[in-house]
Amino acid sequence: MTGATLQVIRLSRAAAASVSTATAAMVCRCILDWFGLAIAGANEPVSRTLRAIALAEGGRPAATAIGGGEEVSVRQAAFLNAVAGHALDYDDVSLAMHVHPTTVILPPLLALAEERGLGGRAVMAAFVAGYEAAGMIGRWLGAGPYDRGFHMTGTLGALGAAAACAHLLGLDEEATARAYGLAASQAAGLKAQFGTMAKPIHAGRAAEAGLCAALWAEAGISSRTDILEAPQGYAATQSAIPTGPITWDGHELDRNSFKYHASCFGTHGAIEAIAALRAQGLEPTDVRQVCLTVDAGADRMCNLAAPMTGTEAKFSLRFVAALALLGADTSRPGLFTDAVTARPDLVALRDRVTVVFGPRDWPADLTAVDVTLADGSRREARCDTSLIGADDDRLRAKFLHLAGTLPDGYAQRLADQVAGIGAVTDLRALCRLALRAG
Amino acid sequence: MTGATLQVIRLSRAAAASVSTATAAMVCRCILDWFGLAIAGANEPVSRTLRAIALAEGGRPAATAIGGGEEVSVRQAAFLNAVAGHALDYDDVSLAMHVHPTTVILPPLLALAEERGLGGRAVMAAFVAGYEAAGMIGRWLGAGPYDRGFHMTGTLGALGAAAACAHLLGLDEEATARAYGLAASQAAGLKAQFGTMAKPIHAGRAAEAGLCAALWAEAGISSRTDILEAPQGYAATQSAIPTGPITWDGHELDRNSFKYHASCFGTHGAIEAIAALRAQGLEPTDVRQVCLTVDAGADRMCNLAAPMTGTEAKFSLRFVAALALLGADTSRPGLFTDAVTARPDLVALRDRVTVVFGPRDWPADLTAVDVTLADGSRREARCDTSLIGADDDRLRAKFLHLAGTLPDGYAQRLADQVAGIGAVTDLRALCRLALRAG
Repeated sequence: MTGATLQVIRLSRAAAASVSTATAAMVCRCILDWFGLAIAGANEPVSRTLRAIALAEGGRPAATAIGGGEEVSVRQAAFLNAVAGHALDYDDVSLAMHVHPTTVILPPLLALAEERGLGGRAVMAAFVAGYEAAGMIGRWLGAGPYDRGFHMTGTLGALGAAAACAHLLGLDEEATARAYGLAASQAAGLKAQFGTMAKPIHAGRAAEAGLCAALWAEAGISSRTDILEAPQGYAATQSAIPTGPITWDGHELDRNSFKYHASCFGTHGAIEAIAALRAQGLEPTDVRQVCLTVDAGADRMCNLAAPMTGTEAKFSLRFVAALALLGADTSRPGLFTDAVTARPDLVALRDRVTVVFGPRDWPADLTAVDVTLADGSRREARCDTSLIGADDDRLRAKFLHLAGTLPDGYAQRLADQVAGIGAVTDLRALCRLALRAG
Repeated sequence: MTGATLQVIRLSRAAAASVSTATAAMVCRCILDWFGLAIAGANEPVSRTLRAIALAEGGRPAATAIGGGEEVSVRQAAFLNAVAGHALDYDDVSLAMHVHPTTVILPPLLALAEERGLGGRAVMAAFVAGYEAAGMIGRWLGAGPYDRGFHMTGTLGALGAAAACAHLLGLDEEATARAYGLAASQAAGLKAQFGTMAKPIHAGRAAEAGLCAALWAEAGISSRTDILEAPQGYAATQSAIPTGPITWDGHELDRNSFKYHASCFGTHGAIEAIAALRAQGLEPTDVRQVCLTVDAGADRMCNLAAPMTGTEAKFSLRFVAALALLGADTSRPGLFTDAVTARPDLVALRDRVTVVFGPRDWPADLTAVDVTLADGSRREARCDTSLIGADDDRLRAKFLHLAGTLPDGYAQRLADQVAGIGAVTDLRALCRLALRAG
């Protein structure tokens, strides 16, 4: 066993074994942010419907369905909680992977830990292993699979979840390699489904696939052990087998991006840049025209010109820019309703926004905003979203807002426990704080 | 809603509504052949391991786990029974789809029918709908996805299972289109996994994905309704969006291919051609050299030059030809053991076999055998496996052999019931005949 798969396994295990205080703090941020999103997302129609189907199917209660008020099987918990975490499309992002990482990696770990009585320390290490494995694979593959149309939260996410679960189960290198193979055999997800309930289902299936892959590998199910680089394997079918080597360049986790706005991440640069202009005194009534320059990749991600629904609005650079010009609080998921999307003042402002694509060498995460005012003068601002750092105050406010449906005091207790999760031995008690949301 | 997806839905529903006696007989053959394979396959290690995991997970007992002696949830039954049906790699083939069709389409239908009290007539119609839908999509896509490395039993199989389940659930066109979309969102499977336990798991996951997709669509989960032709959708990610239209050219089911040999279907032409030469008096001791001419596609499917295990032997044209030259009974799955694969006389004969690839216009399913004898004379034979018709005597013998582990008389009763399945109202009683295998 040599090659890319083995390399990823070895490097990710090493990365999980040497976690700095800063990286550990990032893990805690990922977990806190995810809990808020899963609590709120569990009330979304997609979560309610899938939970009802799971409860009808039955299963040995072993893990918490976040926000649902029920215990379900480990597999069901991994699936339902991952769907819930992505239901609002407001969860964190790894730009290197093109993946929403935490909601595919964390839920199967929590479910396994609940069932097997494993503690927070082991979950944190496994989370790092899964995150770093997916990060290395993502950087190795590049944007090819995403550009082709694969929703990598579903496809690469399954690998990350498998790597994490294999670590938590203590699988050796060979069994871990089989877990990778068995996850790749289930890796699926299509970008055509953006804007539908299938998108969070991709995250749910990835979490479940990774969990099953690790459990199957533990039980002795056979598989290729070189699935990443094998002919007719993962890279070959996702895009093409890269010629370069697997490399690790410090914890990818340190570059994890959180969402502070409830719209598609590709719109955040525009929001931040426009907010900066507003802070400098820009008044929406003065705006004659707005030109957004973005990477061409945004065209197939968040460039709906005239959105009709609240969900579509999140994927419309023009509409989100209009919201930002008016100073709307884009941190609130409840902002994105069908009614707001149809509001005449916003539609009028939206129609003053033009989206153009930068030249070939335009940085993928850079947005340039060029505003022409009524008097013909111009205002310009730029934002590279890959450079927006983690902001604990904003994350905490976001969490408390999203977790506001929990019983009194529970959100605070949950936040406190997550802050010290490395020392938590009873993860079931922690998860049960998020069991019921009103 | 227009385009390829809608076209497939309409044409497959029409095909299910007009089934000739000959096509109905083919459905019965598919079902009988599958039961034998699932009964025997349920005793394979992959089935035993996955069944143990499912039983530990728990679930409301609602459907039969074939051969396992247990009732499980509908979803678990779809998964486990599909794995069992493909575990021996001896189940039927649609050359148009590049799919093992029955084991992905039938198990979710039987499980749903058991739970909802639906009868054989509805299951037969749904089977036709699923088969014809996958057949049309397969002919539309061509070999592109398979050549790319996708195991289409997993990927296209999920669509076929969804189409069948949607039909059984009585979904309308719009909901059926969502079921297609939700199945495509889960479509996975890699040819790199041939020769491992992941291969039958692809079939299991496809069956389960199709079932879930239909149940989710029934429950109102949203999805694209044009997933086949959508940019960044199913065809786009599997290979490329075809330029041609969806067409239906009579029931694809009538062209279903059964396996009469327990090795990869790509080796059957060689076996049949060599058997014909043996019938004309060819003696293995006279053979100096054998040249097999096949389509180049066989190289990535069944051209292991020197197999080491019984499983690998099934994917070795050279070794299978050696077995055929000696007149071994290749209809018996038990033939393909590690010990037989290492037998010196077979290895010596194998080393006299050369595989060459025909010119570009060589028919995909044609094998030409050219034997040079010790005296320098030559013997030639050809077989096009797409022209091997259904043979009820061979199928019956195969079924009775595979189902030989059932209690006395059960195999015969099962065969009788399947022969008249259109009139069976209690499919649970039928399935329970296959509940226990010794």
